[in-house]
Amino acid sequence: MEADREGLHRPTDPQSFPLREADSSASCPTSERLDFPVAVVLPAGGSGERTGLATPKQFCTFLGRPLISYTIQAFERVTWVKNIVIVVANESLDLMKNIIQKHGHKKVKVVLGGPTRHRSIFNGLRVFMESQDDSQLTKPKVVVIHDAVRPFMEEEFLLKIANAAKEHGAAGAIRPLVSTVIATTSEGYLDHSLERTKYRASEMPQAFLFDTIYQAYQQCTEYDFEFGTECLHLVLQYCGTNAKLVEGPPTLWKVTYIRDLFAAESIIKENLSQRACVITGVHQEAVHLTHCLQKTLAQSMVDTVSTWHGSDGSSPSTVLENYNLIYISVNSSSFHEINKLVETIGNTALPVLYPVVLIMMHLSLSECMSFSKTWDELSAIKKLAKEVKERNILVYGLLLNYTKDAEKWNDAVENASVIALSLIKDRNAALTGQMFVV
Amino acid sequence: MEADREGLHRPTDPQSFPLREADSSASCPTSERLDFPVAVVLPAGGSGERTGLATPKQFCTFLGRPLISYTIQAFERVTWVKNIVIVVANESLDLMKNIIQKHGHKKVKVVLGGPTRHRSIFNGLRVFMESQDDSQLTKPKVVVIHDAVRPFMEEEFLLKIANAAKEHGAAGAIRPLVSTVIATTSEGYLDHSLERTKYRASEMPQAFLFDTIYQAYQQCTEYDFEFGTECLHLVLQYCGTNAKLVEGPPTLWKVTYIRDLFAAESIIKENLSQRACVITGVHQEAVHLTHCLQKTLAQSMVDTVSTWHGSDGSSPSTVLENYNLIYISVNSSSFHEINKLVETIGNTALPVLYPVVLIMMHLSLSECMSFSKTWDELSAIKKLAKEVKERNILVYGLLLNYTKDAEKWNDAVENASVIALSLIKDRNAALTGQMFVV
Repeated sequence: MEADREGLHRPTDPQSFPLREADSSASCPTSERLDFPVAVVLPAGGSGERTGLATPKQFCTFLGRPLISYTIQAFERVTWVKNIVIVVANESLDLMKNIIQKHGHKKVKVVLGGPTRHRSIFNGLRVFMESQDDSQLTKPKVVVIHDAVRPFMEEEFLLKIANAAKEHGAAGAIRPLVSTVIATTSEGYLDHSLERTKYRASEMPQAFLFDTIYQAYQQCTEYDFEFGTECLHLVLQYCGTNAKLVEGPPTLWKVTYIRDLFAAESIIKENLSQRACVITGVHQEAVHLTHCLQKTLAQSMVDTVSTWHGSDGSSPSTVLENYNLIYISVNSSSFHEINKLVETIGNTALPVLYPVVLIMMHLSLSECMSFSKTWDELSAIKKLAKEVKERNILVYGLLLNYTKDAEKWNDAVENASVIALSLIKDRNAALTGQMFVV
Repeated sequence: MEADREGLHRPTDPQSFPLREADSSASCPTSERLDFPVAVVLPAGGSGERTGLATPKQFCTFLGRPLISYTIQAFERVTWVKNIVIVVANESLDLMKNIIQKHGHKKVKVVLGGPTRHRSIFNGLRVFMESQDDSQLTKPKVVVIHDAVRPFMEEEFLLKIANAAKEHGAAGAIRPLVSTVIATTSEGYLDHSLERTKYRASEMPQAFLFDTIYQAYQQCTEYDFEFGTECLHLVLQYCGTNAKLVEGPPTLWKVTYIRDLFAAESIIKENLSQRACVITGVHQEAVHLTHCLQKTLAQSMVDTVSTWHGSDGSSPSTVLENYNLIYISVNSSSFHEINKLVETIGNTALPVLYPVVLIMMHLSLSECMSFSKTWDELSAIKKLAKEVKERNILVYGLLLNYTKDAEKWNDAVENASVIALSLIKDRNAALTGQMFVV
């Protein structure tokens, strides 16, 4: 959506995506640590019938990566989560293993599911009890159960739930009801409506003392395995454990309908697009352009723009901490430099997780541009873009003309910023290799 | 989201946007007609606190148009809906009147709301009882109450609800519960969970015999006005009318959180992007390109591609029935033709409702393109694009080289289609005036 006509701008997104922090190696989302072992069981056997899609939701891809990989990453980045057990249907086993390998997940073990959700969770729990020599798994104090299709879970909330489970034996996330809940008569008429304040929607994650939830599953009936919906209810019934309910943030929502897939796609993109690193040489006009870009981009959503003098031999870590790259060249592009840069990006874990945007911004100092040179440049960018797209790096060209006319120059920088921002936000693979002109 | 790796493609969206039908003047969504007068009351005074936005959700813009305008249009296109009464807060009165004027809404009357939702609805109903000479409003048999932030309502479901209200006195939309609903103890522990099958989420629209709901509001207490949530409940309590509950489609969802704004934006775009009209002259290569484009675009999401020979004097209605335009020129663009076309589009109601995409596809017959000519073309497109963007027409250039090498040609057409499709889907105002090259 856009800023409205009164000039109000989009606020900081309250559903801010925790992965942004994880991208920066230095930052650490929570200073608190847990002093007991925590593991996660992630049932991922859903068929996705409510979306009407042939592909189950957890395997729908966003920016080339399946939804479940985002959910895994949300746990993997939490240092005190030791193991993540994914429970999948037999027909998804190979797909799941490929996802884990392709996107470099490390803490994950894949287990076969059962015919119902509860059977699958129990299968997931059981692997911690089977003491195999080749297994890296140790029985955790607290186990977290989550949905594969709730990828936006935040570490801070996970910490709350895990601590509450340790203290109370069980804990579950709740949210206020969005709609009024009504009871219907058997003939399809209104019977009565519930008083909203007394009820809550039960969400995920939920967490349990491992021994408590394991014991509940050992004792529960065929009927529970078949028709039960709530783990919280099982521990109450079989272990007398009253779950502590913890109100969670709206980010806990579950991808359920087609509209949720759209929303997930937008949020994933929105939360990736906040940073760019401008790389410039020592050329005076390039440095000037960089300063101008920093100013205009900062007014938009780019929260940090730093510079790296590609040619001064400094460490590329500045580049890698940031996400998107704007490479400024003057008069002619240095494809040698750019190839080195692409190589450096390719050797990091970044493009394994997200498409990286590289904008080759070309500053022409002559008032009148050389057509044939521009054309050659375009061909070179097209070729490079095609080669590196496979490696999840999206290359675009952007041409602007240097002018001493302050008004024209400001216009040009403003336009260049708008285009750069749009390319970074959209990560549109269809437009790589194009040369944009301002 | 993207097609997954097994080559499964995105299915027909079950949340298909009803406005698509309305864009085509000939089509008529439901053949059934109602033989009694129906009006709509749309309370639009919500503050949008759950999104955390300064702008209430109903006034957030999508493709330059506020959400409430989409909701109004969903009712306006239904021939048997006679009047739409919008109830707004005093501070939104001018904004609402501007919206109605700017987007050409015809059936709408704006009324001031009260301090609560029920007061606002009652204010909306009362205008039908005040017999003013200047008012076009007549008391309807059935009145539909809806939310301003549920823009995807379908005529077919509205018909069901209106008929059910006529028969039973009151009718309301319901949906299955997404989450388990639980009752909490006062200390924040699980008390019990509700059996999901016995309960439903109460959604909108709801419909009533006008006299029934009016009578209920006349009788209800201050407490009802202040704290009541359900109109269905008021007619039960004060008129003894048991509302018939009708299960609605998932498209009835309410824009509540930030993620819903993202979803609404994507669905609005997705449902606008299905058609393109290719306009070609009589030049043999242009006709050939058109045939090739029709084939490749049909494989994607473009459901109808027709052609209009801009120069043969035929009616432009073919152009206007379709939504996006691809204008093919050979060797040199005819800006005279294009200006005429822009004029024709500008004189229709289309750009009042949505941005119209116009792609100037330039086919170069010489194996080696003329750089300076391309440059001139780019400058001309930039100028035109800037002028017409204000009028909600988005112009892009797309350059491709004709070749007799079949493989190269197929590649070029394929690439041109991918770019054209991306431009039509994204409607990205930041990239207008750019020249894309394949």
